[in-house]
Amino acid sequence: MNTLESSSKIKQLIASRREGWTLPGAFYQEDDIYRTEMNSIWRRQWLFAGHTDQVGQPGDFFVVTVDTDSILIIHGLDGTIRAMHNICRHRGTLICQAESGHAKKLVCPYHQWSYSTDGTLEHWRGMQEDLDKSELGLVKLPLRTIEGMIYICLSASPPDFDPAYNSMLPMALPQGLAQAKVAKQVDYIVEANWKLVWENNRECYHCNAHHPQYMRANYDHYNEDDTTDLIRRKIDFAIERDEKRWKDAGLAINHKRTGMVCFPDPDNDIWYASNRTPLAEGYVSETMDGKQVSTLMGDYPNADVGTIRMRTMPNMWMHGSCDHAVLTRLLPVGFNKTRVSVLWLVDQNAVEGEDYQLDQIMPFWQLTSEQDWEICRLAQQGVSSGGYRPGPYSTYKEYNVDAFVRWYLKSLSIDL
Amino acid sequence: MNTLESSSKIKQLIASRREGWTLPGAFYQEDDIYRTEMNSIWRRQWLFAGHTDQVGQPGDFFVVTVDTDSILIIHGLDGTIRAMHNICRHRGTLICQAESGHAKKLVCPYHQWSYSTDGTLEHWRGMQEDLDKSELGLVKLPLRTIEGMIYICLSASPPDFDPAYNSMLPMALPQGLAQAKVAKQVDYIVEANWKLVWENNRECYHCNAHHPQYMRANYDHYNEDDTTDLIRRKIDFAIERDEKRWKDAGLAINHKRTGMVCFPDPDNDIWYASNRTPLAEGYVSETMDGKQVSTLMGDYPNADVGTIRMRTMPNMWMHGSCDHAVLTRLLPVGFNKTRVSVLWLVDQNAVEGEDYQLDQIMPFWQLTSEQDWEICRLAQQGVSSGGYRPGPYSTYKEYNVDAFVRWYLKSLSIDL
Amino acid sequence: MNTLESSSKIKQLIASRREGWTLPGAFYQEDDIYRTEMNSIWRRQWLFAGHTDQVGQPGDFFVVTVDTDSILIIHGLDGTIRAMHNICRHRGTLICQAESGHAKKLVCPYHQWSYSTDGTLEHWRGMQEDLDKSELGLVKLPLRTIEGMIYICLSASPPDFDPAYNSMLPMALPQGLAQAKVAKQVDYIVEANWKLVWENNRECYHCNAHHPQYMRANYDHYNEDDTTDLIRRKIDFAIERDEKRWKDAGLAINHKRTGMVCFPDPDNDIWYASNRTPLAEGYVSETMDGKQVSTLMGDYPNADVGTIRMRTMPNMWMHGSCDHAVLTRLLPVGFNKTRVSVLWLVDQNAVEGEDYQLDQIMPFWQLTSEQDWEICRLAQQGVSSGGYRPGPYSTYKEYNVDAFVRWYLKSLSIDL
Repeated sequence: MNTLESSSKIKQLIASRREGWTLPGAFYQEDDIYRTEMNSIWRRQWLFAGHTDQVGQPGDFFVVTVDTDSILIIHGLDGTIRAMHNICRHRGTLICQAESGHAKKLVCPYHQWSYSTDGTLEHWRGMQEDLDKSELGLVKLPLRTIEGMIYICLSASPPDFDPAYNSMLPMALPQGLAQAKVAKQVDYIVEANWKLVWENNRECYHCNAHHPQYMRANYDHYNEDDTTDLIRRKIDFAIERDEKRWKDAGLAINHKRTGMVCFPDPDNDIWYASNRTPLAEGYVSETMDGKQVSTLMGDYPNADVGTIRMRTMPNMWMHGSCDHAVLTRLLPVGFNKTRVSVLWLVDQNAVEGEDYQLDQIMPFWQLTSEQDWEICRLAQQGVSSGGYRPGPYSTYKEYNVDAFVRWYLKSLSIDL
Repeated sequence: MNTLESSSKIKQLIASRREGWTLPGAFYQEDDIYRTEMNSIWRRQWLFAGHTDQVGQPGDFFVVTVDTDSILIIHGLDGTIRAMHNICRHRGTLICQAESGHAKKLVCPYHQWSYSTDGTLEHWRGMQEDLDKSELGLVKLPLRTIEGMIYICLSASPPDFDPAYNSMLPMALPQGLAQAKVAKQVDYIVEANWKLVWENNRECYHCNAHHPQYMRANYDHYNEDDTTDLIRRKIDFAIERDEKRWKDAGLAINHKRTGMVCFPDPDNDIWYASNRTPLAEGYVSETMDGKQVSTLMGDYPNADVGTIRMRTMPNMWMHGSCDHAVLTRLLPVGFNKTRVSVLWLVDQNAVEGEDYQLDQIMPFWQLTSEQDWEICRLAQQGVSSGGYRPGPYSTYKEYNVDAFVRWYLKSLSIDL
Repeated sequence: MNTLESSSKIKQLIASRREGWTLPGAFYQEDDIYRTEMNSIWRRQWLFAGHTDQVGQPGDFFVVTVDTDSILIIHGLDGTIRAMHNICRHRGTLICQAESGHAKKLVCPYHQWSYSTDGTLEHWRGMQEDLDKSELGLVKLPLRTIEGMIYICLSASPPDFDPAYNSMLPMALPQGLAQAKVAKQVDYIVEANWKLVWENNRECYHCNAHHPQYMRANYDHYNEDDTTDLIRRKIDFAIERDEKRWKDAGLAINHKRTGMVCFPDPDNDIWYASNRTPLAEGYVSETMDGKQVSTLMGDYPNADVGTIRMRTMPNMWMHGSCDHAVLTRLLPVGFNKTRVSVLWLVDQNAVEGEDYQLDQIMPFWQLTSEQDWEICRLAQQGVSSGGYRPGPYSTYKEYNVDAFVRWYLKSLSIDL
């Protein structure tokens, strides 16, 4: 399908969407829409890539694969962390094969063109004299960090990053994300379109039935069927009490509602969010029993800090407790598959086996994640059916799914 | 490829077909033709889904997957068997994951929208008050039965079913199909386009070489190379003798020719057929040794009833002996793959191990089927070759393949 | 995508190519370009199919699969070797299932249409009398041989073969290729576009790092970084010395440069090449230790004959030593996969275990081949990235890759 036809088809599909209802099925199963998304969203916006701890030492690198594009995140010998296409400028060969590693220079396996860790082409043998080596360095990509969280953009003209930085910093700082280390990473291939993974994330309407451990820890009870005035009052009391305490402790507060802060906000181009929210009675960490499972992170004076939550479109969300934080990264690998990586972070000085045990910090979010991937798989099967018809979002519980869909359609429309 | 281009291409291909010769190769290997078939044939015509015994009790259900569409066949608690899209009206999730099962109500796994077994939306929590629950029931599909054989249509405006019903009933009734049970189902993925499976079915020109057990049981010897007047006279004698006896026994006779009754008939829009035909000397059932292998079905006074055969386009054929019946159901899963299910039926009161043994009722049609799937696979490989050119059908032996092709092209043309 | 759009897109891509630089990435990853290649190159030009030893006896056959097309190479009972589509003219079924075998006649498995080994339709049963059997023989394809090397063309109007024949014969004759036998064939599926396999073949810039055994045996040291006048003089001396000796021995010499003879030559439509080149000191055969590993081939008076090399676009190259020869055949199986067969030939009278051992004749080219396939795989991954940008070829070392790319683009343009 050529661009004109495809554009026209997508415009018609967008126009056909009933406000407040789910997307037409084509958005989840047609390759030309997926390719449009790759160009209009994924190769244009800021993407969460990983954590600086993954490139702790000069020469450390890891590779991020966005659709077909292999991106190298490398800690240069000069101390700077950079993002570059992992593709030799000679014949286009993949340079680093490993998903992560350590290198003093970057040597293409094919003809040994050799680049410094800042991407400068340093050695080539046998090339003609009239070529300009300085024009053939590795293609660099914009990179920014927020307290250890690395963001890259596949476009040379990225959107403004500062609003996101300024908004998220006050929450990321006390959490000590810059002084964290990755205790564990688990990768999944979820058999669902990346939008279904977000749509799942943007509501807790499904939490009661699927995430018992999550429901015990959080005040998302707001979403329970048995919402009563009594429960509402308990929640309001907890928030008021905790916020006062946190304010006294100097912990930023920017939002009073529980987990389901309004996000994203396409009308104001808000693709980033962060907030602090109380945990349920008896919980000081998002763990199976609510108990602290590692040393305190960052500047926290004690364990009583609730949880922080951050999200950036189109591919990151995180939950931070007093003692650990969990970052989730999405990467699309086709219209019906998403690579999801979950990273567990602890304080960089915490020692495995002494200060923390993996089987204590991991189960809460590993369970919650895997429960969600299974639902997403069933959703992909359903929306791919000829019998699927768009349905209504709950204005009480799915306003954020609707916000996501509106953000998506606005983003997708940019080049149509 | 857009619809206009695709339509134009298909029209040209149809026009290029030489009468009485096989189809151009594109019909077996191009995705846009497959999609046109799905809409013009498979989502428009009556499809055989299964047998009422598979949903014997209120709450019993099974799932039929037609291309991407998951269809639920469920025996409602009110006693009615219905077909519905197996897709929640909320976010489009697949409701029943199992291929078959039992349910008192239908609960979507995602947010627990709950439907009665007649598809009525009964419970949703947390949805806004201005939505009309009655408009969000499961999408129902037309369903009809002929003596236990369930037919569904994916279109809300199905073709007239009555002619098929009236034509097939007199043959289905004495066979006792409504009082049968499924003794066994075997599913296959045949690596061939669904039309090749039909083209194989619509002639016995290949039977001599491939189906020795079938040839011994049937008077399709008409197709043998060594056809002589003597053999012809023997066959005519058998038919005359049997038909007289069957007529006396009240068994409907609607056709004198052996197995290869003319079918389908696109000129008269005949997509259904049934006939009774004699078995060879010494055979009372389509079994390896011709012997009866289960209790008599239906109203049959004795085993001497020949076999009945029924077929409906685009996805069912069956062979019924005095003591068992075998139904074959086709479901396309792409332009080069077909899911085929073979169901062995016996009288509902027959007891496995006492009245019948699976290893006695199954081998005849299991062998014959599997022999055919292998030929179909080779045919798919051949017609996909750039070296394939259409060839001539035998007017003696392949008139029904030609009839199928003409039926197919007429059906395909409906929206071009 | 329809033909007009696709043609227009390909023309733009061709126009966008910077002279002397690599191809845009679309050429390696888009299906419509692959299909254009299949029609403009692979179904139009002469393809290397195999060796006459593979069909040594009347009735012997083997099958070559070019994209979707199954081609039968058969030694007729009349003594003639022919190429025919391996597809029955009746319903299009694949006739020979085995990759090679022996047959006195060709019988379609479906309805037993029977062809003689020259493709004549001999028997059909049950077909109407007004059909002309003589018009329904197997579809024959042009076939030519050069001293045992079989070439076929999928077009009925092949390009002129004589220039290739006349050019290659003087090199093939003394090598005794017509009196050779296939000692071993190894097949690979290389996960790369067929052009990347050629681009790898058309330079030895990568040899130092990847092919140590090859570098020890050959004077491709020309490509080493440490090229010095001394080394150049040594090479020139070796060539002058060897060529004089070969000329005295009556061995054709048509080129003075080492391995990297200029090839192909799109400006003069040269798609074939052959040359003789010296081996390094101490080597008389392309083997791991340079020693002779089988009886002398052809007319060679002694082992001191260097190596011959032949290549024909789009799918063959070979290296011949005094005692064995290695032919490599490419067959595309999609835009990112290539089936590669490597054939080891020895004199037909050589006896395995006595005159040669497979583990002595094979490792040199098996290693070299497998090293290349791995690089090709990495190249495919790289050029498929959105971060890939065309890069410059070395005018010293990659002039032949550039020649290949120019040959390719000229060939591809033929129908645009």
